[in-house]
Order: sequence, then structure tokens, then C-alpha cells
Amino acid sequence: MKKASAVKKSAPKKPAKAKVKVKIKAKTKVPTKAAGRVWVGLDLGGTKMLANVFDDQYRVLGRAKQKTQGAKGARAGLKRMVETVAAALADAGVDPSRLAGIGVGCPGPIDPSRGVIVEAPNLGWRNVAVEAHLGAAFGVRTVICNDVDAGVYAEYQAGAAKGARCAVGIFPGTGIGAGAVIEGRLLQGSSLSCMELGHIPLFPETSGMGEDGTTLETECSRLKIAIEAARAAYRGQAPHLFETCGTDISKITSGAIAKSIAAGDTEIEHIVRRAATLLGCGVATVVHLLAPDVIVLGGGLVEAMPKLYLEAVRKSTLARILAPYRKSLNIVTATLAEGSGSMGAAAWARKTIEG
Amino acid sequence: MKKASAVKKSAPKKPAKAKVKVKIKAKTKVPTKAAGRVWVGLDLGGTKMLANVFDDQYRVLGRAKQKTQGAKGARAGLKRMVETVAAALADAGVDPSRLAGIGVGCPGPIDPSRGVIVEAPNLGWRNVAVEAHLGAAFGVRTVICNDVDAGVYAEYQAGAAKGARCAVGIFPGTGIGAGAVIEGRLLQGSSLSCMELGHIPLFPETSGMGEDGTTLETECSRLKIAIEAARAAYRGQAPHLFETCGTDISKITSGAIAKSIAAGDTEIEHIVRRAATLLGCGVATVVHLLAPDVIVLGGGLVEAMPKLYLEAVRKSTLARILAPYRKSLNIVTATLAEGSGSMGAAAWARKTIEG
Amino acid sequence: MKKASAVKKSAPKKPAKAKVKVKIKAKTKVPTKAAGRVWVGLDLGGTKMLANVFDDQYRVLGRAKQKTQGAKGARAGLKRMVETVAAALADAGVDPSRLAGIGVGCPGPIDPSRGVIVEAPNLGWRNVAVEAHLGAAFGVRTVICNDVDAGVYAEYQAGAAKGARCAVGIFPGTGIGAGAVIEGRLLQGSSLSCMELGHIPLFPETSGMGEDGTTLETECSRLKIAIEAARAAYRGQAPHLFETCGTDISKITSGAIAKSIAAGDTEIEHIVRRAATLLGCGVATVVHLLAPDVIVLGGGLVEAMPKLYLEAVRKSTLARILAPYRKSLNIVTATLAEGSGSMGAAAWARKTIEG
Amino acid sequence: MKKASAVKKSAPKKPAKAKVKVKIKAKTKVPTKAAGRVWVGLDLGGTKMLANVFDDQYRVLGRAKQKTQGAKGARAGLKRMVETVAAALADAGVDPSRLAGIGVGCPGPIDPSRGVIVEAPNLGWRNVAVEAHLGAAFGVRTVICNDVDAGVYAEYQAGAAKGARCAVGIFPGTGIGAGAVIEGRLLQGSSLSCMELGHIPLFPETSGMGEDGTTLETECSRLKIAIEAARAAYRGQAPHLFETCGTDISKITSGAIAKSIAAGDTEIEHIVRRAATLLGCGVATVVHLLAPDVIVLGGGLVEAMPKLYLEAVRKSTLARILAPYRKSLNIVTATLAEGSGSMGAAAWARKTIEG
Repeated sequence: MKKASAVKKSAPKKPAKAKVKVKIKAKTKVPTKAAGRVWVGLDLGGTKMLANVFDDQYRVLGRAKQKTQGAKGARAGLKRMVETVAAALADAGVDPSRLAGIGVGCPGPIDPSRGVIVEAPNLGWRNVAVEAHLGAAFGVRTVICNDVDAGVYAEYQAGAAKGARCAVGIFPGTGIGAGAVIEGRLLQGSSLSCMELGHIPLFPETSGMGEDGTTLETECSRLKIAIEAARAAYRGQAPHLFETCGTDISKITSGAIAKSIAAGDTEIEHIVRRAATLLGCGVATVVHLLAPDVIVLGGGLVEAMPKLYLEAVRKSTLARILAPYRKSLNIVTATLAEGSGSMGAAAWARKTIEG
Repeated sequence: MKKASAVKKSAPKKPAKAKVKVKIKAKTKVPTKAAGRVWVGLDLGGTKMLANVFDDQYRVLGRAKQKTQGAKGARAGLKRMVETVAAALADAGVDPSRLAGIGVGCPGPIDPSRGVIVEAPNLGWRNVAVEAHLGAAFGVRTVICNDVDAGVYAEYQAGAAKGARCAVGIFPGTGIGAGAVIEGRLLQGSSLSCMELGHIPLFPETSGMGEDGTTLETECSRLKIAIEAARAAYRGQAPHLFETCGTDISKITSGAIAKSIAAGDTEIEHIVRRAATLLGCGVATVVHLLAPDVIVLGGGLVEAMPKLYLEAVRKSTLARILAPYRKSLNIVTATLAEGSGSMGAAAWARKTIEG
Repeated sequence: MKKASAVKKSAPKKPAKAKVKVKIKAKTKVPTKAAGRVWVGLDLGGTKMLANVFDDQYRVLGRAKQKTQGAKGARAGLKRMVETVAAALADAGVDPSRLAGIGVGCPGPIDPSRGVIVEAPNLGWRNVAVEAHLGAAFGVRTVICNDVDAGVYAEYQAGAAKGARCAVGIFPGTGIGAGAVIEGRLLQGSSLSCMELGHIPLFPETSGMGEDGTTLETECSRLKIAIEAARAAYRGQAPHLFETCGTDISKITSGAIAKSIAAGDTEIEHIVRRAATLLGCGVATVVHLLAPDVIVLGGGLVEAMPKLYLEAVRKSTLARILAPYRKSLNIVTATLAEGSGSMGAAAWARKTIEG
Repeated sequence: MKKASAVKKSAPKKPAKAKVKVKIKAKTKVPTKAAGRVWVGLDLGGTKMLANVFDDQYRVLGRAKQKTQGAKGARAGLKRMVETVAAALADAGVDPSRLAGIGVGCPGPIDPSRGVIVEAPNLGWRNVAVEAHLGAAFGVRTVICNDVDAGVYAEYQAGAAKGARCAVGIFPGTGIGAGAVIEGRLLQGSSLSCMELGHIPLFPETSGMGEDGTTLETECSRLKIAIEAARAAYRGQAPHLFETCGTDISKITSGAIAKSIAAGDTEIEHIVRRAATLLGCGVATVVHLLAPDVIVLGGGLVEAMPKLYLEAVRKSTLARILAPYRKSLNIVTATLAEGSGSMGAAAWARKTIEG
């Protein structure tokens, strides 16, 4: 699963690139399956929103996407969400009456009890009643969840964590996203989504103000790797990276990092290993607190260098956990492709609706 | 709730003091309630085991205790556990036929799927099939849980966390014990108890070996406070503590610490504040991962200086958590008295049996 | 004093920019002072070398500069050094017979006992016998010193540290350069220059390998500020800096940092304060070890934001030093202009020659 | 050299043990050498003061000692110092007219320009004009220095650092004492002794207050080893140490530590290695700043386990210093016996007087 922007709450406002018009794709289709209920999964991203129509076996029957345009406000956003769902249904050639439920993966912390986005910093939205609005528009129950949670639920439903009693997904990207599924249900607080792994303290200040201590995210996100890599490039310690990306951290993507290591930039490999080693602290924390059956690592960094990254995380985690937890520890990489978040959102909605 | 020895897995083998013979108390009683089912809760401690007989309202009908004598082995221990339960039933004047279930709070990590103590370092036991043995002895279902979990379940059932959707109990003592109850059920792994908060990394090594990094427990348990206090006493910075305890860390109990602060040892207060501040890192981690409704702090340190400790933990936690979590955060001190672990164990057994 | 590249030993190979031909400036001049001995100070920089001719009052009588072209090798470099000194003498209209001595400020660690550059990483040179070569070429005694030491000696001779019994200069730039003058003499080892302040351990690994611990330089050089500032810019926390420099650390100069703070980027101010605070640890170390009368802070960062930087360093230093050292602590900013290194080199040569 | 209490400034007020009356030893002796000048070295310790009379070859001609009794005040202390010097001269059978000078090694920071003890926390004295008082009493020039400096000067004069151009002595004890001799002269500030190695920051706070960061001394003095060893003993990880010392840090001496390691307490060995590793950070700092020819390690810890300690310090130091410094690095153990501080004080007085 590719989940580069899978960052909870702290998703940084990435410097906007050239704006590209994205129109709603909606070619009318002759319904291949006259009957049967369908589910819609909507992935509400910082840049674009993507809706998929699924049958009960999560086969994709239709899809639609358009730009999110968070800057135009939540009201306009809700309207676009309705349009996108409608367009996906049209693309699938499915009559809305067959719609059994809508699942939406949303950025930032959500309130699962009220069906509200609490805060989506990368969209600039607060307190957006997504469930009520989409539910009213389509006359079906709508269930929202955090977008990282949607990705983790997808891995639980059909990917690397299939069938686990307790599955945790961790997606190191610009931030560190994570989610957990326990006995088929997403781990959520009463009125807030949780598993904000990136924000747990690491190397904290000890004087009580908490101002300058660091968090897991500060120490091992892709952004941390990028700034350390830029420093190495500047110092002449990473000639290959310097050649391709210069010293601009925006250019130092997961792919560029992987390539520079393959080309021989050992200092960059060292930087990645250190970050993965510290991510292992977060994994060790999760193991000690939740004792999951499986931990799924995904996201751009992991995809770009699965062997190196997985190995370093495993080594660090094993060195930090109590012996009894070592036996059953299963750390694997994600298996689903990008865009699986919408499937996870649909599956979670179905689970919630059907109980 | 007093839970001085409420330490998961890492409970240290405290240097044994003068041995005191503890006999089984079992004065026969005329049954006050002729009918009604009863539950037995057994708290298996490092030094002694304590059984209570409860009615459905968790009123104590009878009790018994004796020394654990872990050094004599698990087989002998199981025999003593049966004796203690039997003695408690006799003390209650309750016929064993009225027994609906037995709950046992055990030291160390347990395997809830098999009902087995995995490892109890302070007893020297491994792989002890407690559920099978007691179940066979009394012909009723027996359910074990970790002893800290039992204490947390008691707070959920009848104490400071009553009625919470998600409750977390944290008991800083010689180690740092913790447990969580989510929607009425203890948070446990498939084959291991969890919430080993004391063992999460803090100030970790970054080189990948994990050898010398510290954990939450290393940084803020009572033992850490004691060694720092002993250093201050040695250096002449804690005259009151030096007068009462000298420089022997075994004498620097929670009570002695509290008294020295009250007498004016500001350096000791500073040491406690620092430890509580760092415990706040653990609390912040738990908040970010589980979003609990309530966090209950208990144990000897908290009881000895509730105001100072709670204030420092709160301040540190609030400074470290994301804004949306701040609103609903509820950190309180435990309200149950010592020995409530047996009640928690009984209540958890009942919950497991009744579903 | 501007000493942006004043980095001992670890001077990074800054990514080369467009090469600009720099010719030797050498307009013949009619000697204003027919008699009197002169001294030449040569500042051997990573990019260019600059020679000044001084009279006994350190008035500049002539100068010359040309590119260093380290990549062409040490032999070619020595030849260019001779040319530059000769050109400066010609510019001054001074007959070489009046030359009393030559001082050379060299990058990297030098061996003062043999007059040799031990290693100049940014030039790619090793074991270059500068004193012997220039001495033979001009028939006068030549004395080399580290280039940062030359800058510090200039401040001692004519700047902010004038007349101090023990003066320390610290120049945070890409690295952290430092030097000390005690009773009129540069502090140097038997066979190596010293005061490599940037390389002292801070937040070291504790496992004994020393591999991943950090040093003062890692934590508070301009490069550290630049990468943290780039991260803030990427995250949308430093809009002004993002507008002017984007996320390229090569563009985030001391001047750009100062401007973004002035424009309101509080996060950047926070980053600078943290770096200055940690530099204060280095200052505290120097105070505890040498008890200097005065500490002179210079370099691009200090020049760009003298008030903010000095204040933060002072506060941090005072909080970390023993009380008796606080009374006499005098931390000031450098007063000499850029290029004073050549004067310092000349003055140190004269001191060495005259005793 | 044994210098267990060789701690500058921060020498802790060690809890007083049973008081033993120490009388002035002063058996009259027939002068073996009728002529020749003599020097007196006085070591002013926290508990006792010791004076030796030396000839020009530093052979001991006589000695005297008595209790310091700091609590009786500086005036009484000065009187006792005079008595002790007089008694030593009498013991040597030397007429005071042959006295060429007196050297005094004093606890705490001293002001070499005024000959005054600035502060001796373990005596409770401040601003004590030792040079003036003893000078007037005996009519000869008196020169004071810090007591650790006296020990280092002795090693330079006649021990492991003999003949070095730059020698540094480091004595890890309850604190971390250090001193440096450069070209035959003690490194001192204008108005304060220096080389307060124990107080340099390590793992500092980054928020600018400096309140809770640690120093070298906090991390690796004997006191740090003792508290960590007590913790290990309490946790059952150091059975041999527990047997001999229990958990009282006052009983955990350097000798007890060494014995427990020899008996198989690997956890204690690990604790010592970690402390020595961190001391290596201090050594690396000194190497980078002063580039000494030789570093002499002494004190109780080093004497008790020279091989283990020296090896760990060397490994850590080498891993942390720049390559050019590695070649010439010479780290050795002290060779002089306990009490050599008085010889160092006498030698330093002579050097100062004779120039």
C-alpha cells in the first residue's frame, strides 16, 4: 500500500506545486450486475479525493476523483464529496438505491462518536460533519475514519494483516501514521481517533515544559531523513544524492534516497538506518502496549527500500522488547497497492453498519 | 488503591527482610446468606497470596492468605493456591458448590489464551497452568490475568475509572505497572498480557543495538527516585532524608521521600518532579495511542504525595499531547484501598465467564 | 570579523558554484614610506587566498588575492602562495628586503613544530610544508597557524579581546571554529593546532563506540540551523523563509535566516535560539576548562543577528557555569571586519619571531 | 597517585564517620643535612592537612599532619596550617631560616592572583587569604594552587607525565577532578583556577535554562557508579556486591566495586564501562581543546581497576577524536602514591618563585 501522505493530524502543509485541473471521470457504464448491494469508499486526501464503488467482495465497480480544494472551505468540500460519490456510482452504472453504505477516510483526528472531522490542518478545516452530510445526501449510513486507519483496515481486510486478532499498521512518511485493528474493530477513542504514533515523546526535555523534547516523528520521519541527507549532500558526503537532488529537501524523495544508496552513498544508508532504528523504538512501544500479532510497515520509504528498512526496524525492535514478546513478533511490509484507503474506508463502514 | 508491588514482568527480586510466618486465617463462620453464587479473587503476590470471596455485589464474604514461597516451586505454589481458595471459602462459610468462578491476578506476563503464567521472575516460575489446575480443583472456570491488570480492572469496576469506555491505570512503583480496560474488557494480546508501559524506550541509543538506551522505568520508577535521592543525601543536599534513611536506597521508601520533602528537602522534591515529568511522557504516549477517557494513577509514590505527583504528571502530559486530546484528558488518582486486586481479578473472571 | 568559512578541520566541501576567474590585483604603487620593515599576512582560504602587507602598526600597505584552486594540488598551491605574497609586496611598492616575516593562516589542523599543514580537507591537501617553502622563497622566517587561530589572534591584537590575559574566540559557521590566546600566545599542541570546539561530544552514545553520538557542531552550527529551518519551511511553519529560500539548505544563509526572523518567522527564531543555547554548552565547557577573561563571538550568524544570538548564548552559558566563574565572564561580539585573518597571521608570526 | 577526594569545587560534604583524634606527629630529628634550602608542601584536605618538608630533589625530610576541622572556621584553620608547617619543619630538624617557600594545595577554586581560596564548600570557607597568612608567619613566599592541580603537577614533576610539554591529569572520584600543565606551568585563569572538567555539560537541556541537563560528573563520577550499582544490587543483578555492601551507596567504594566485578557481577562491570565510556567524552573534549601530549588517569576508581578502566576510556576517546589527534594520544595511569599532592604543591611554589 502506498500511503505517502498518510500522516495523522500533523500532516504538514506541503509546499503546493503547479496546480493541475483534475476533472471528474464519469463515463456511463452499462450495469454488469443488475442486482446486489454496493459500498462506496471515499479517500479524502489533501490534494484530491477518490471514490470507489465496491461490491460485497470489494471488487471495484466504478470510480471517480477530483481535486479536494481544501482552501475553498469545508462547505464547498462537502459538496464536492457528494459529487464525487455520485460520479463514482454513475461510473459504476449503479443505481443509488443499491448503495448500502459509505465509508470516508479523512485526514486529521476525527470524532467517531459524532462522525465529524475534528481538525484537518492540511485542508484548513475544523468540525466538519461528514457523516451527517453524506448520509443525508444519499440516504444511507455513512461512517468516517482517519485516513491512516482506513489504510490499516484495508491491510487487515485484504492485505498483509488479513485475519490477525490484533494488527498494527505503521506508515512512516512525512510524518508517522499508524492505526490498529483489534478483533476486527479499529482502535479509536470515545470521541477521537488515536494511534498517533508520530507524536509520542522520544528524547524528551526533563524540565517539565516539554517544549524542546523530540517526538518519534521528529526523529525518524521521511522529513528527518531528508534534512539529514541534505546536510550530508552539502558536506560532500553524499555525492550521488547531491548530483540528483542538490541540497533541496523537497527533492529528496523516498525514491531519490533509495537510488543514492544503491549508487553508493553510504552516509545516506547510515541516515536511513538510524531513522529506522528509532522507528523501532515506536514499534517496541506498540508491542509492549498492545502485543499485536502482526505489524505492517508501509508507505513510500518502506516501498522504496523494503529490505534495508524492514531489517533495521526488526533489529532495533527485537533489541528493545522483553523476551516473551520476541517469539511471536511478526513484522512485515504492506501488500496492497496505492489507493487501497478507499477500500479500507468502505470495509470499515460495512463492519460498523453490520456490527 | 495501594499497589506498591504492582510491577509487570520486571518486578525486581527485592532483598528479603526478616521472615515472618503467615498462617492461613480461616475461622469458620455461619453463612449469613444461605443462597447466591459467589466469586473468588486470588491475588498472587511475590511474598503472599490473598484470596477473597465475593458475592455478586463484590461484598467480601470471607478471606484467607498465606505466604507464596515461590522458591519452593510452581507445583507447591499451585497446591497452596488451592488451599488458600478453600480456606477463604471456609472463612466465608460458603459451600464450594456456590462458587461461580475464580479469578487470579498473577505476576509477570500471562498467556490469556491458555491460562498460563508465562514467566514470573520474582517467583522464579515459568509456564504455570493456573487456570487448568484451579479449574480442576474446584470444578469451576478459572480466569487469570496480570496482577496490575487486576488492579486496573478493580478501579474500572468500582473505583476512579468506573464506567469509562477506555480506562488506563498506571502504577509507578519499583517498576511502572499499567493496564487498560476498553469497553469493559482488559486490553490483552492474543497470547500475552500487555500494557508493559515501563519498558517503552525513552532516550534510546540510536546505533541500533538498543543496549544502553533507557526505558520509562529506568527514568522514573520509585527505584530511580531512590538512587537519585541517595546521591543527594550523600552530597549533603537532602539533610532530612539523610537523617532518616542515610544513603541506603532500600530505606528510601515512598513515605520517607514524602516526609523529607515536607521537611524541606527541596532537592528531593526536584527529583520527584523530574520523575513525574518523565512519567508524563509515558502518559502522553498512552494518550496518543489509546485516547483513554480516564487515566488513574496509583501506587505508593502517588499515595504518599498525591498533589505534587499528580500536578507534575498533568503538567508534563498536557505539554506533550496534541491539542484535541487536551480537552477530554482526565487524570485522577486511584480511590480503592490496598488489596483490591483480588476484587479486580474476580470481576474480570466474571466478565470473561458471563461475556 | 566575518569568518564564515572559519571552520577547523571539518570544513565541509561546499558545493562549488559557478567558477569566476579572479586575477591577481597588483597595481604598482609609489612607496609612501621609504623605510621600515613590513610583515605579510596570508589568509589561505578554501576558495581564494589573500595577502596583505603591514607595517609595524598593522596599517595595510598593499594587498593581492587570487583563487586558491586547491584541486590543482599542494605544489601548485604553494607556487600561487608565493606569487600572491610577491604581488602584495609589489602592490605595496615594498622591496622584499624590508620583509621581516610572513604569517599564514591555514585551513585544517597544522603542525606548529614543523610548520606543516597536516590536513586541509576542503583543499584536498596533506602534509604541506608551507613554512619551509615560503621561507625559502623570500628568505624570511614564515610562521603558519590555523586560520581560525589567525582570526582570534587578530581580535586579541586589535579587536574585542585586546589586552586580555586569556582570550577565546568562537566563530559558529558551517562548522564551529575556535581559538585561544593565553598570555599573548596561541594555545597550540606540541605537534597539532587545537581548540577544535566543534568536535567536542554532546549527547554522546553511551555504548562505547561513539558512532552515533553528536558533537557541538552537529547540534549548533549554521548547517544545523539551515536544515531545521528547511524542515520548518517545508512544514509551512516559516512562510517568510519559504518565500525567499524555498527548502534548499544552500540558500538558507545567515542573512536569510536573520531576515525571516525579522519578518516574523518565530519558528526560525526558536531554531536559532536552540542552536545558540547549545553553543552555550560549548562556551560553558571552555569557561570551566580555561577560565578566559573574554570570549569573542564572531562569524556570519553572529553578525547577522548579534543581539539575539549573544543574548541566547549568554543566558545558556550563565545557567551552566559554576558561580565563581559568573562574576568575571565577559562575552562579546567580534569587532574586526572580514579579512582580518591575514592581520592575525602576520601578528602571530611577528610574536613568534620576536618572542 | 591516590586522590580519592581530589574533586574541584564540587567536593561533596561526605557524611562524617566516627571522629578519630589525630595528633600532630612531630618527633624531633637530628638534621641529616646541615645546609641546603628546603620547601614545604601542604595538602589541605577536607578531613586532614598534611605537610611535608622537601629538599631540592623532593626527598622528604620531615612531615606532620593534623585534622583540618573546617567547621571551626577559616581563622582557626589558618592557625592550624601554621602549626602543621612548623611541626613538619621540626620533624625534619630544619631551621625555618632554610625555608625557601611554601606551596599549598587547597580544595575548591582559588584565586592565583591574590593567593586566596575563593570557596571551599567541603570546609565551609570563603575568601581565605592563605598566601598572605602563611607568608607572614614564616617570612617566605607562599604559593597556593587547587589540590587537584597540585596532584597533576606532581605527576608532571615526577610521575607519569614527567617532561611532557602539555600534560593533563584526570582523577575521577566522587567528582571529576582535573588539571593541566603546559610548558611547565599550571593552566589557571587570571583570577580563578580552572580545568573544572566535571562540570562541563553532557546531555544538556536544550531549552535554555540549563536546569536539568547533566554534566560529565553527573554521568560518570564514582558516585554515579555507586548509585547505579546500588540499583543493580537492589534488583538482584549484582549478588556479590549485594552481599558485601547491601544497597547503601556509602559502602559501595571503588574497592568494593572492583571486588564485585572480579567475583562475577557482570552488571557492575557494565556500569563501570559505561561510566568510563562517558569519561572518554571528557577526555575527547580535552584532547580537542588542548591537544595534550599525555593524559594521566588517577584516583581510587582507576587504581582499583586500572586495566578495565583505562581500556574503556581509551576506546571511547579514540572513537570520538579527529584522526590527526589519534596518532599522538597517550593515555596512562598515574604512578605516584597517595600524598603526592604536597610534593606537587611544593614544586609548583618553587616553579612560581624561581620562574
